[in-house]
Amino acid sequence: MKSNFHHVALFGKYQATHAAGKSESARAALEDIAEFLARRGCEVVLEAETAANTGLGQYPTLTVPKIGAQCDLGLVVGGDGTMLGIGRQMARYGTPLIGINQGRLGFITDIPFGGYQTALTSMLQGEYEEDQRAMLHARVLRDGSVVFEALALNDVVVNRGATSGMVELRVEVGGRFLATQRADGLIVASPTGSTAYALSAGGPMLHPAIPGWVLVPIAPHTLSNRPIVLPDDEEIAIELVSGRDASANFDMQSLASLLHGDRILVRRAQYRVRFLHPLGWNYFATLRKKLHWNEGAS
Amino acid sequence: MKSNFHHVALFGKYQATHAAGKSESARAALEDIAEFLARRGCEVVLEAETAANTGLGQYPTLTVPKIGAQCDLGLVVGGDGTMLGIGRQMARYGTPLIGINQGRLGFITDIPFGGYQTALTSMLQGEYEEDQRAMLHARVLRDGSVVFEALALNDVVVNRGATSGMVELRVEVGGRFLATQRADGLIVASPTGSTAYALSAGGPMLHPAIPGWVLVPIAPHTLSNRPIVLPDDEEIAIELVSGRDASANFDMQSLASLLHGDRILVRRAQYRVRFLHPLGWNYFATLRKKLHWNEGAS
Amino acid sequence: MKSNFHHVALFGKYQATHAAGKSESARAALEDIAEFLARRGCEVVLEAETAANTGLGQYPTLTVPKIGAQCDLGLVVGGDGTMLGIGRQMARYGTPLIGINQGRLGFITDIPFGGYQTALTSMLQGEYEEDQRAMLHARVLRDGSVVFEALALNDVVVNRGATSGMVELRVEVGGRFLATQRADGLIVASPTGSTAYALSAGGPMLHPAIPGWVLVPIAPHTLSNRPIVLPDDEEIAIELVSGRDASANFDMQSLASLLHGDRILVRRAQYRVRFLHPLGWNYFATLRKKLHWNEGAS
Amino acid sequence: MKSNFHHVALFGKYQATHAAGKSESARAALEDIAEFLARRGCEVVLEAETAANTGLGQYPTLTVPKIGAQCDLGLVVGGDGTMLGIGRQMARYGTPLIGINQGRLGFITDIPFGGYQTALTSMLQGEYEEDQRAMLHARVLRDGSVVFEALALNDVVVNRGATSGMVELRVEVGGRFLATQRADGLIVASPTGSTAYALSAGGPMLHPAIPGWVLVPIAPHTLSNRPIVLPDDEEIAIELVSGRDASANFDMQSLASLLHGDRILVRRAQYRVRFLHPLGWNYFATLRKKLHWNEGAS
Repeated sequence: MKSNFHHVALFGKYQATHAAGKSESARAALEDIAEFLARRGCEVVLEAETAANTGLGQYPTLTVPKIGAQCDLGLVVGGDGTMLGIGRQMARYGTPLIGINQGRLGFITDIPFGGYQTALTSMLQGEYEEDQRAMLHARVLRDGSVVFEALALNDVVVNRGATSGMVELRVEVGGRFLATQRADGLIVASPTGSTAYALSAGGPMLHPAIPGWVLVPIAPHTLSNRPIVLPDDEEIAIELVSGRDASANFDMQSLASLLHGDRILVRRAQYRVRFLHPLGWNYFATLRKKLHWNEGAS
Repeated sequence: MKSNFHHVALFGKYQATHAAGKSESARAALEDIAEFLARRGCEVVLEAETAANTGLGQYPTLTVPKIGAQCDLGLVVGGDGTMLGIGRQMARYGTPLIGINQGRLGFITDIPFGGYQTALTSMLQGEYEEDQRAMLHARVLRDGSVVFEALALNDVVVNRGATSGMVELRVEVGGRFLATQRADGLIVASPTGSTAYALSAGGPMLHPAIPGWVLVPIAPHTLSNRPIVLPDDEEIAIELVSGRDASANFDMQSLASLLHGDRILVRRAQYRVRFLHPLGWNYFATLRKKLHWNEGAS
Repeated sequence: MKSNFHHVALFGKYQATHAAGKSESARAALEDIAEFLARRGCEVVLEAETAANTGLGQYPTLTVPKIGAQCDLGLVVGGDGTMLGIGRQMARYGTPLIGINQGRLGFITDIPFGGYQTALTSMLQGEYEEDQRAMLHARVLRDGSVVFEALALNDVVVNRGATSGMVELRVEVGGRFLATQRADGLIVASPTGSTAYALSAGGPMLHPAIPGWVLVPIAPHTLSNRPIVLPDDEEIAIELVSGRDASANFDMQSLASLLHGDRILVRRAQYRVRFLHPLGWNYFATLRKKLHWNEGAS
Repeated sequence: MKSNFHHVALFGKYQATHAAGKSESARAALEDIAEFLARRGCEVVLEAETAANTGLGQYPTLTVPKIGAQCDLGLVVGGDGTMLGIGRQMARYGTPLIGINQGRLGFITDIPFGGYQTALTSMLQGEYEEDQRAMLHARVLRDGSVVFEALALNDVVVNRGATSGMVELRVEVGGRFLATQRADGLIVASPTGSTAYALSAGGPMLHPAIPGWVLVPIAPHTLSNRPIVLPDDEEIAIELVSGRDASANFDMQSLASLLHGDRILVRRAQYRVRFLHPLGWNYFATLRKKLHWNEGAS
């Protein structure tokens, strides 16, 4: 049976793999999936960087913007980290993404490479669950100008320098003062990011359907500075009041050094990432699996 | 200047006060406020139980349903506990409520009795902030029949018996299995309730605009059973799997004993409570004050 | 080779088992172990209640005090709960205990029934690690008289009633005021108990060699009421200031109802429990296993 | 009346103050206290760096080792941070220390400058409480050699780099493997340090009489990696397994960059710091004050 998706782009690990062995197996996986798709009648293209990193030459390559314009599906081979990077890039084009994972399954990449064919066959025929995720759009404002801008699917994190004490951060929400916090840092996490770093720092999980962010202070000086869930339709402004060598990072994949007085402005990005999962996919089952619930713990 | 609100109902402490002195001061406060309102041209009525508890006789009395039908404002003299009880009753009528507090200010009752005249004068002229709060509608299902039903503005709490070990609870959300939890209990808190018991048990704060509930396990056996924020448009079902003498309570103001197999179903109530605050009222300022943030902590 | 231990007492599940199947398997296990010990030249006796519960008749029976006087080893077949009960009873006699577990291994019962023979053979020859644990000695003082007294190996827990609000507890340590706490309750846990209920309530783990207790408030109203580790050579006094239907429990195995003004006094018991483990036993390995550390988590 | 202490050394802020105004007031405070001591018959010396920083010239100056050899009391004017630095230096000489605080009172510097004369008069006559605190002695081992060594009164902290992901740390206690942790970092805190950074990161308080350290992971990946209290007579070894730009700091006052394979070894220092407090001083009262307990919380 023919695929509902005709133009499919293949993405591999976002950053060049360091280990030769890993790279080899990633290349083989991509090749295998490409052939599978071609046999199903799909026109297969490789994302340009993926092609460069893996040396795969049999398929046409396209840049991300061209993929966004021409393809109706993106297939990502990698883990959650890879998916974060590609999700941020593809969201503006509305191209849906499917994740195939060669290692441990993640929160958002949930199809194991072993046996992907069965899952993919059904999905290509239109049998899938769509799961849209909101993204954070962050800007760093210095002396009235935007000096840095980034999207984040997981989180925006403001951090103290590694060798210095706490930062002091002044937080406003929709123009209203929330609090001044002294802490190691502050996380603004999306529902997607609420099960990542924010969870380690003591934050709650947010169901993907919650139109909100969670602010999680990291090691706050004031013990009642607890995580707070805020609506995602108001801008959050975080001003660096004091603290040396502070920085802001976005999905732990890009970084801005901060000066005193810098304001990190966070609002909901205009576009959402579209993930496709096999029919029967279930957010709660993913939580149970990843957090080792109900394992007959003693 | 005349009031925008013509028919105003006065409510006192929901439960009969125990201490004679307190009761006396509550009565005097109600009398003072009633006179103030009358001078502003309002027709003042007393809620029937309030009249009975305080012995105030100068004003007509009405039952809650009649107040709902005839009054365009409710004025509550008491703390957050009193307001919870009256809020649950008045929500269905859409009557807005103002809280005047003789003791420590609460999260939702924020006008101090000392000097209430200034705040009230402006509010009666239409200068106020409206603050709507979602409520939980809970039912206890046993053998297919509803054996208990209650509204809650703060929280629905399932509890182990005081002298027995953990309860085991099976939780479903919108018909999908979430987890089986062994714990002292489980809290389903609204944004309003997120700063009450749920906060003590380790939950996050939820801004009132968040259309969600937070599930907070109390002393969970499995350490990764962390608080989770769920959308408020899906029904949460909590089944008592095991545990002796378990019970469910609703705003800590009504109570149901539970048997094994009982299912507590929680959905969003049809109506919201309408609170009015003085202009310039600010949810974040309330948090800062109640949680002692930014107090020049050590 | 002959055993270093000549008089060995066998203990089964402390409370009569409810399930007939379980009881049957417990009886068979005891019989098997008794025969194994007899073949090694031990004189085997059955603890009197164990004999009554299981109906095992081939061996002489002794009460706990006589076992304490006459036996040089106790062998407990059961889980941590069983061991807690027997440990409390045997501590005063100094009789060392070995735990054999038919179910999931516990924190203190660590020899699986399957293959117990190898472990026991070495231990009977004197190859073991001794692991002594401090116990809590608790008394409830009412109007100057002791109305309840109990030992606890895990914890002393003061609890609110199931259907009432917080308790208010005034805590003194060595006669000095520590704090008044409003909470669901308060746990005083030994190092042994620090990995049980206290851990669920947010307490730290205490290595068994720490001469201290940890006080863990349960859902405390004041967020800075955090767990505190106190030396075990000073008496802790907890006074019930307010709260209905409060109670104190001891290892969750005995219980005292509390009145306002009651004082629960906790000091270190005169005797320690002596556990024997196979050579190479390791407290940290137990933690790693029971808490699922380093399991290649996601 | 004459002082029991004859040779008293005065210490000011450990690091040169940045603000001219502050420095001026510190100088005036030192001068005032020096005169007060001289009038009481004490021979007053200034610690050499303090003299250099403040320009005070009327009193003889001594280096720290000479103060240790010749003085029977050290008087520290500053906050907890200053006291940490001087405490670490003076511990080996056994010289007791008194702290006079010009700002907010700390956990260990508890005599306010305003009215210090009353407190000091009694203390000089021998009316004081002595409060000894254990210190951490840390070494960084690289390829079998010690490349860094430091004392810490509060804590030893291993940290990820500010712009990199988690560190992976392998922890051993007394030569036995405890766990491999992936986290932002790991704190080893003394009882003194347990109310500082470790508390912000989720650790318990340790009474100063507890002969132990608490290990507190910072934002640990595995949620069951909870704080653990370990005896202070065994060496703790923390090996950096992976993570870029990691470092170790000691009381946040000295710092070592770390390479993969480096081992941070922590044991109890040979000497304790001796603090003197006014009669009636009380550790618990300090906790209540600093943590804002029992403040008529809401």
